[in-house]
This record gives sequence, C-alpha cells and structure tokens, in this order.
Amino acid sequence: MLPRVSLNLSDERFSIVYRLTGNADDAYAQARDICLEQTVEFPDELVPDGDIRDHIVGQIESLQPVDGTHFEAVVSYFVETSGFELTQLINVIFGNISIKPGIRVERLQLPASLLQAFKGPRFGREGVRALLEVPQRSLLCTALKPMGLPAKDLADLAYAFALGGIDIIKDDHGLADQSFAPYNERVQRCVDAVDRANRKTGRRCIYMPNVTAPANKVMERAHFAKASGAGGLLIAPGLTGLDTMRRLADDNAIALPILNHPAFQGSFVTNPANGISHYALFGQIARLAGADASIFPNYGGRFSFSREECRSIAEGAGVAMAHLKPIFPAPGGGMSLTHVPEMRQIYGRDAIFLIGGGLHKHGPDLVENCRYFLQLVEHL
Amino acid sequence: MLPRVSLNLSDERFSIVYRLTGNADDAYAQARDICLEQTVEFPDELVPDGDIRDHIVGQIESLQPVDGTHFEAVVSYFVETSGFELTQLINVIFGNISIKPGIRVERLQLPASLLQAFKGPRFGREGVRALLEVPQRSLLCTALKPMGLPAKDLADLAYAFALGGIDIIKDDHGLADQSFAPYNERVQRCVDAVDRANRKTGRRCIYMPNVTAPANKVMERAHFAKASGAGGLLIAPGLTGLDTMRRLADDNAIALPILNHPAFQGSFVTNPANGISHYALFGQIARLAGADASIFPNYGGRFSFSREECRSIAEGAGVAMAHLKPIFPAPGGGMSLTHVPEMRQIYGRDAIFLIGGGLHKHGPDLVENCRYFLQLVEHL
Repeated sequence: MLPRVSLNLSDERFSIVYRLTGNADDAYAQARDICLEQTVEFPDELVPDGDIRDHIVGQIESLQPVDGTHFEAVVSYFVETSGFELTQLINVIFGNISIKPGIRVERLQLPASLLQAFKGPRFGREGVRALLEVPQRSLLCTALKPMGLPAKDLADLAYAFALGGIDIIKDDHGLADQSFAPYNERVQRCVDAVDRANRKTGRRCIYMPNVTAPANKVMERAHFAKASGAGGLLIAPGLTGLDTMRRLADDNAIALPILNHPAFQGSFVTNPANGISHYALFGQIARLAGADASIFPNYGGRFSFSREECRSIAEGAGVAMAHLKPIFPAPGGGMSLTHVPEMRQIYGRDAIFLIGGGLHKHGPDLVENCRYFLQLVEHL
Repeated sequence: MLPRVSLNLSDERFSIVYRLTGNADDAYAQARDICLEQTVEFPDELVPDGDIRDHIVGQIESLQPVDGTHFEAVVSYFVETSGFELTQLINVIFGNISIKPGIRVERLQLPASLLQAFKGPRFGREGVRALLEVPQRSLLCTALKPMGLPAKDLADLAYAFALGGIDIIKDDHGLADQSFAPYNERVQRCVDAVDRANRKTGRRCIYMPNVTAPANKVMERAHFAKASGAGGLLIAPGLTGLDTMRRLADDNAIALPILNHPAFQGSFVTNPANGISHYALFGQIARLAGADASIFPNYGGRFSFSREECRSIAEGAGVAMAHLKPIFPAPGGGMSLTHVPEMRQIYGRDAIFLIGGGLHKHGPDLVENCRYFLQLVEHL
C-alpha cells in the first residue's frame, strides 16, 4: 500500500490537445489512459489517493468529436511533472504514448508559468532581420551541396551565392565532418568566401554551418563556428535531441541564430493516426527548443506535405506563446525559382524561401540565378 | 557546372535494407530517390561525374518483391558518408527519407570497417551477468513509481524490491528532477536503500537512475550517479538523442551498464509503411548506440506490439554485428507475474523481465511478490 502524499504545490497546469482515432468509447478510454500513462504509469486502482491522484495524474479537460472516427481530447498536466526541463516536458507530452497507435499531438497550450523556464528563440524574426539588415522582404536561403565536394569548392559556391544576393547560405544537413570536406576547414573557407562577397556587395549575407554532431562535439563545433565568424548554425534536432538545440540557443557565448532541420523527424508526421502535427512539431516545438527558423519540405516539391500542413507550420511558428518570439517558416525541399511567387502568396513576407538544387537549374551562371531569385522576391 | 571530384578513398560500403510500399515502378523510383536524397540531395542530372556520382551517391544493390505492394531494396552507401559519427550515420540511413511515406528501414548491414568507429555496449549480456553475479537465469527488473512519491518513499520501495530479490531497480522514466523527488536526493537515498538490502541478502541488486535530462545535465547526473554508487543508468535516447547514450556508454569514468527506454521513439514503429523496424530500432540501433539492454513493451500488455515484432527485437539484440556485444531484450509495459512463463518461453534465459505496476498487484506484501517473481524465474 503506497503512502498518501501531500505536495504543497500550486496546481498550475498545461494542456495538450490530442487527436484520437476510434469511436467514442475508444476515445474516452484512450484519453483516460493518456492521463495515467504519461504521468504515474501505474494501474488506476493502485494510484494513491491525495495529491498524486488529484494533481499528478493527467486530467481530461474536454473530449469532443471531430467526425465519426476522430475525437479531440484536451488533457491537462501539473506543470511540475515537467520538472521545467525540455526533455521531461516532451516526455509528458508524448513519451510513452508515442508507442500507442491512434494518438496524435495537435497543439500545445503552455501557460506562462511553464514557458518562463524556456528562453525560446534568441533572435526570432525581428532579430534575424536586424542581423541581415533586411527589414521587410522575404529572406533568401540556399544550401551548399552536393556532399563529396571538397571544402574549397563549397566555398566557391558560397562566394557565388553571396555575390548573387542570397541572405542565408547553409550547409546541406548531410555535411558533417567527412574527410572530403572536414568541418573546420569548410567553416573557415566558407566564412571567408562569404565575407569577401559581402565586402563587394555591401550586403550582410550569413553562412550557417551544420553542427548536427556527436553529443560531445556539438558545442565544440558551434564555438568554432562562432570564433570563425559564421553568422548562424544549422542543426537537426531529430538527430541530436531537441534539447541540444535549446542548449545552443541559450548559450550566451555562441548567440547565433539557429535553423532547425527536420531530418529524422519525419516519422512523427507521416501517420495521421499517430505522432505530432506539423503545426506542433515544426512550429511550436521547434520554437520552444530555440530555433529562429524552421525548415520543412514545401508542398509541390520532392516531399508530400499538403498545402494545409505547410500553412499550419507557419501558423505554429507565429502563434502567441507568452514571451517566445515568432520564428520564420523556411519552406524548401525541391523548390525552384518558379515556385517563388506561390510561396510568397502562401507564406507572406515573413518567411525564408529555401532553394537548393533548384538554384543550379535556372541558368548556367549561379550568380545570375541568385540575382534573379532576389529580383523575384523584391518585386513581389 | 560543378567540378569533377576524385576522392582517392577506398570504396568500403555499408548497406541498408528498406521495405518500400507501392508497385514495382514506384519501388524502383523510390529506391533511386533514396540513393540521391540520403547523400547528395541534388537533382540527378546535376550530380557531377566522377567520384561523387560513382561513390557518394547511394547504389541499389538489389530490389526484390515481398508481395504485390511491397518491395525490399538493399541500398549501399560509401562508409565515409557517415563521417564515422552516429548522428550522421543515422542521417544517411533515415534522415530526410523519414519524411517520405512508404519507406521503412528493415535491417542494417554494417561492415567492420564502419563498426570499428563504435564501441557499442560496454557490458553486454555477459558483462551485466558478471556484475549481478547471475550467470544463468533470466534477470528481474522493476521500476520505482508512481511519479509524485517523495524520494524517501521511492527509496522504501527500492529497499523492498532489493530485499525480495529483484536484480535491477530502475527509475520510472518519468522521474527526472522534479521538486517532489529531486534527482540527487533520490539517487542517494535509493542507492543507500539498495545497499542496505544487499548487505542483508548477499545479492548484488543494482539501482539505475534515469539520466534522461537536458543536454547540459546528462553527464553531470551520470557522474553523480556513479559517485553515489548507482549500479547503472536508464536513458531514453528518443528524448536525448541517440548519440547522448553512445557518449554515456563510451565514458570510461562512468563505465556503468545502460538501459535503453523507448519513450518518444514509438512513432518510428507504429506505421508499417514508414519508419524503422522493431528489429533495427530497438535491437540493432540501441546496441550500436551503446545500450546493454533494450526495454520495449511486450505483446499482451498495455501496448500493441505483436509477438513477432517483440521476438524480432530480441533477434536484433543478439545478431552478429562485428565486435558489438549482444545485449538483453527487456520486455515490459503492463506485464504481471502471470506473464512470466510465456516470456521465458519466448525470450529464453537471456532476457530481462520488467514488471512495474504489476508487481504491486500480486499480493499485499511487495517483498513477497518479488520473492515469488524470483521463484518463478528460478524454476523455469
């Protein structure tokens, strides 16, 4: 028999909106199960009375039908269950139930009493615009690729991109520390190339190297990037853990804008009956974890997100979340220059348009292709 | 026009077996797409001739029908694309294509030339058995819960479990550093409780605290656990990133066995047409990332894995992978004592049987319940 516990803590709660697949009875049983599974992980009849039952166990705040086989449940949790740490907060939101079919996280509703534990994006939209000195228009981004090019050739590409008017040049997320373009050499060469171009153009183009790396090397690479003069960092939190991005964002000695790459996170969004919504994962959670911009594959490219899913990411990137700054949606993934007008129409000015391989396709001169990209964006 | 590159590197390759959903034409197109997407991420017609096209781009080694709508493709990659780092290796295996429906990782086929970069499990089955002085029988594991109990009460539970003959007492994975049972206090109290019980029983029961924590606190908590005398560590790599577990396993100053918890990894396995097989994720990849045992929800409990999926995890935990030690499958998730005989039959002796809440249910005396669990296992 377990002891009755009094916690003497206020009952501030946060809520998660889950989409449940099944009939009304299934949905109620699932919602009830979520309340236990995500907190006490204990058989209901054995949960001790008192504060554990009354506060620690999740509570169903509402359960509404969406259609005949889908329900929306709002489940609230005591903020203290998160320990005010991102790893455990994500665990409460979707740790064990990620293993259960029929449950999808739709939206996070986090009160200021919880959000105060998280700094969120250091720059956000305004901070990135200030850094680039681009107050109004959409931002232009491209990637250094293909993997296999030596650092010197990648730097030549970076020079051409910066000369042509690209705002953000990122490493392709598959550039790590391979022998054909070692991280330190690549970063130094690309920073130098972009600096040279900036001196010619008078622009403030920035290079963002990829710091997706082993756990004991992420900070080292980020510090190297900072010391070398890189203007930002790219990271894929699906590979490093979300909190590694949060750590980067919070580090005052680094203080660089961060681009969130979705690699290895796709399985959360490819199954409509399990996972996390595009809105929550690439919008709200990327932001909570400190990203200043969130890359995702735009509809109509190499991937299969729908227009509505993409639009919802932009919404999650900007929705009110206490003091957390709004961030840029960064649609990419098989985009070409012909997609720019529609991207502008869908996302408005507050977006980063990422065109990678497509930028090599428009014409034989890369610099000219970039100039055309910039003109397109400036005249929309 | 991109330069032709000569890499002057040997062409050692590793292979991944993917299960593709679609017809024969779809499958070929998907396999071809994987080769590009996971490496150069570049339009085929723009990939420079020479070593980038011939070595860096993935290669279809075979493509076989499984049934009318499923195919198995073996795609090989140049080992150097991984940079010999776990984050980038996982990225090559399933980074961007995690976002594409219809692709599932079935098996990893990694040559010694790649595996040499990874130490794998420090203890493995034999090492854990030696530590516990249990050479033959299946191992008994339980969890400290429910969340909300103060550290003192959790330590009382730990004492009872250790007295009753449990081999491994782990934190519930939702115990982080919450104010109701702060990490340091909990670890010290539970270590002490288990030590007291061990002095009574003469056994070598170990306590494994949960070090799933913010990126800048994992190592600190692990070092605290080691210094306090904890016998192992629990971590959920879905929450921390897989490489954080690898880092823990590789740290010679810590040198403790590691239990892999599947929280937040479920979405990789709940969709048969996208993700990673149970065999690869909870077997091969957990092992590659240094786990000594892999917890997963057994069939017939609170979760929905099938018997075959569970059996495949045990297979992945033991299959030959160069020098990587075989590890224990640790089925749990809603198991009770009545499940033990069947678990023994399915997994054999080389398994850890995890019974959490169910251990409180058998009778009113926890110590007696544990003794019964031990008897059950000893007489099978």
